[in-house]
Amino acid sequence: MSISSRLTHLNDAGHAHMVDVSGKPSTKRRATAKGSIYMLPATLEMIVSGTAPKGDVLATARIAAIMAAKKTADIIPLCHPLALSSVQVDLLPIDNGIEISVTVVTTGTTGVEMEALTAVSAAALTLYDMCKAVDRGMRISDIHLEHKSGGQSGDYDAKS
Amino acid sequence: MSISSRLTHLNDAGHAHMVDVSGKPSTKRRATAKGSIYMLPATLEMIVSGTAPKGDVLATARIAAIMAAKKTADIIPLCHPLALSSVQVDLLPIDNGIEISVTVVTTGTTGVEMEALTAVSAAALTLYDMCKAVDRGMRISDIHLEHKSGGQSGDYDAKS
Amino acid sequence: MSISSRLTHLNDAGHAHMVDVSGKPSTKRRATAKGSIYMLPATLEMIVSGTAPKGDVLATARIAAIMAAKKTADIIPLCHPLALSSVQVDLLPIDNGIEISVTVVTTGTTGVEMEALTAVSAAALTLYDMCKAVDRGMRISDIHLEHKSGGQSGDYDAKS
Amino acid sequence: MSISSRLTHLNDAGHAHMVDVSGKPSTKRRATAKGSIYMLPATLEMIVSGTAPKGDVLATARIAAIMAAKKTADIIPLCHPLALSSVQVDLLPIDNGIEISVTVVTTGTTGVEMEALTAVSAAALTLYDMCKAVDRGMRISDIHLEHKSGGQSGDYDAKS
Amino acid sequence: MSISSRLTHLNDAGHAHMVDVSGKPSTKRRATAKGSIYMLPATLEMIVSGTAPKGDVLATARIAAIMAAKKTADIIPLCHPLALSSVQVDLLPIDNGIEISVTVVTTGTTGVEMEALTAVSAAALTLYDMCKAVDRGMRISDIHLEHKSGGQSGDYDAKS
Amino acid sequence: MSISSRLTHLNDAGHAHMVDVSGKPSTKRRATAKGSIYMLPATLEMIVSGTAPKGDVLATARIAAIMAAKKTADIIPLCHPLALSSVQVDLLPIDNGIEISVTVVTTGTTGVEMEALTAVSAAALTLYDMCKAVDRGMRISDIHLEHKSGGQSGDYDAKS
Repeated sequence: MSISSRLTHLNDAGHAHMVDVSGKPSTKRRATAKGSIYMLPATLEMIVSGTAPKGDVLATARIAAIMAAKKTADIIPLCHPLALSSVQVDLLPIDNGIEISVTVVTTGTTGVEMEALTAVSAAALTLYDMCKAVDRGMRISDIHLEHKSGGQSGDYDAKS
Repeated sequence: MSISSRLTHLNDAGHAHMVDVSGKPSTKRRATAKGSIYMLPATLEMIVSGTAPKGDVLATARIAAIMAAKKTADIIPLCHPLALSSVQVDLLPIDNGIEISVTVVTTGTTGVEMEALTAVSAAALTLYDMCKAVDRGMRISDIHLEHKSGGQSGDYDAKS
Repeated sequence: MSISSRLTHLNDAGHAHMVDVSGKPSTKRRATAKGSIYMLPATLEMIVSGTAPKGDVLATARIAAIMAAKKTADIIPLCHPLALSSVQVDLLPIDNGIEISVTVVTTGTTGVEMEALTAVSAAALTLYDMCKAVDRGMRISDIHLEHKSGGQSGDYDAKS
Repeated sequence: MSISSRLTHLNDAGHAHMVDVSGKPSTKRRATAKGSIYMLPATLEMIVSGTAPKGDVLATARIAAIMAAKKTADIIPLCHPLALSSVQVDLLPIDNGIEISVTVVTTGTTGVEMEALTAVSAAALTLYDMCKAVDRGMRISDIHLEHKSGGQSGDYDAKS
Repeated sequence: MSISSRLTHLNDAGHAHMVDVSGKPSTKRRATAKGSIYMLPATLEMIVSGTAPKGDVLATARIAAIMAAKKTADIIPLCHPLALSSVQVDLLPIDNGIEISVTVVTTGTTGVEMEALTAVSAAALTLYDMCKAVDRGMRISDIHLEHKSGGQSGDYDAKS
Repeated sequence: MSISSRLTHLNDAGHAHMVDVSGKPSTKRRATAKGSIYMLPATLEMIVSGTAPKGDVLATARIAAIMAAKKTADIIPLCHPLALSSVQVDLLPIDNGIEISVTVVTTGTTGVEMEALTAVSAAALTLYDMCKAVDRGMRISDIHLEHKSGGQSGDYDAKS
């Protein structure tokens, strides 16, 4: 089997192209991506405990995720532009950081895995930006596709 | 010490704002960020070995990184817009994936850490996008600031 | 009745999200928004009377309105991206300024109220920009939804 | 005096152009714009009283304002692109709505009036978007330049 | 016959608008545009002969073309935003330069001529940018619509 | 001499990068680009003769050129983002079409050739878009750098 027949974003000559999806049916598709940003306990404490004002840190990350989901085709060169039906962002404090989970839904001819992964990345980068003055050593890790459904290639769940 | 005096992206009321940098001197600043995308050996083989055509996978990821560096202030809500002087992208095949390293340089009143981190994320997401048809289990990890120099807060090197 | 059940852009936890419209039927939707920019009589005279050259003031505002309608989902964080079918802009000189009216049409699962309101705002801001050297006291006012039709929530007409 | 010599965004032929600012000195400039969105008492109550969840409404509007300030040159056709030094957004509940105030600072060759006015507009549009399901009759009004300082044309304060 | 009835992008008053396509059926549409950039023989030699590294010149131009196709409605004021199904870019070395051919496919209510022409232009501009340090006299020429199919106005082929 | 040392947008490994301009002095730079769109006599007649309404065709093309100049770094992958000081657009009816001339000025560390060339392309594409319903055979040609001044590489004038 030739490489270009499997790396679908390359044509037979090995050149990048936007894959033709015009023959695919428009169906409901859903994808969930997850990832985490790890930080010092004191940094996490600043974000999640205490009084109301700190709410803007998590709210800003949520908005960044939603807006990045909409910009995905502008950030990822070969992504198809898509009209998104829904974007849900969950930011969950964990032992040593924040776990980010984003679910995107569309009705269309391509999946929304990249939109979910891009939104997770944008939320993580925004948390880094807002906390970097106190903690430059934060790490963004474990960004992966957790679940997808809909489309020809069937459902997918990350092995746990 | 109050939280808002340390999480500099929140004002005294705890509300998100774009920090005033108008009093800071314009100096040369440099930041290097790194991160990796981990994948199956067969996926890596498709990208890095063999003949010329596959070049477009890495070239596309490099272009995505450079263009994302320029879009950083559009993706990260509280980032200052910056005129970048240089963006360098290195994609290094490692045992089980690709290590991404991006160095950004500017002459300005704020640092370019976020530009470097955003570029690394965009390269990783683009590699995911181009290989996802053969390997949905790829993971983007270890995105961090490796080095920064210039600016009031001094130099920084990640602990190895 | 809980707040989050009515402010539909917040989920049950009170967090911002992009509402799920995947279950809504795709229908033809239309919205008209209006607003005005008020100015000194001499400023208005410069825009609307006299010879050909001044045409570019109104033409520029019209183009700004049409392009802003297309950028709405990039400006309003929780707006769904939409493929617009039509954008019509009317700029009507009134006693003490210019009245702006924009009608947007789409066939989709969400309405185009925000596109029409955003386009009116962009036209008003562009008129301010082009005339600000002679009249800094201009005011943009009365931006509102004049009419909408299509969609589950039924037709709407502003009370006159 | 000819019109085109006063409407500085038109050249001698009356055609739109981006004014040449290359001869102007780079100085610190500040502008504050204000505006309001008027709504039903019940709508205002949903936004400003009660418990934590509602914080995301105001936080989302603040983020929209900051991001729109950065996009001003992309929305207003003849605006010069600018590297902003600071953006501050205040959302003040008033009797029958929310008053929005945005202050923008830059060091550059042109002023930031349009950035401040655009940010106020984006915050108002975002509040409209988040509350439109319960109150379609909201009105955005009184958007104006409150104050500017710096630059050749001197300081300006709106008449009260 | 009045002008405005034929220049469809102007309404009856001669004002620019986005044409209403809401009554048109959604069908599969395809357009191919071509154009060339002419250069010195030595410049062409640098791009097309020799060893692997030079691949990034053509790869960068391909990516620029694909990303520009997605940005068309943001660049051309009266263009409808479209969800593209496919973008294919061919860069063919000719006697005195590079011939660029781009084919775009969509399923929608308007054609994709502008997307194909915009992509050709972006590829040509990118080649100019990458080679301008060695050859400022390059010329971009013969950008035209080669073929279109689908839609009410029927098929079109450029006369050869 | 190696290729990569002359095609400055490739590094020593032949990989695309954004050239480091941090050591270059910030000076005033100017570039003029020209190009033409050729069309049927009847099409040209529609644009340039007759009564007022047609003004919006040329005004729209001028605005498209100015806005595209500002988007250049977003369209051309390796272009540096720049704060433009001035953009002037001239649209001159010629025998068989419209000649487009754009002059861009900046004070910065890189030239504005790409901004001028991109603006010419956008004006030409916009004219094509507005007239394509009556003349699909239009051709965009002769896009070239006419003049540049400022910067280390000295002045340049196209051979006539």
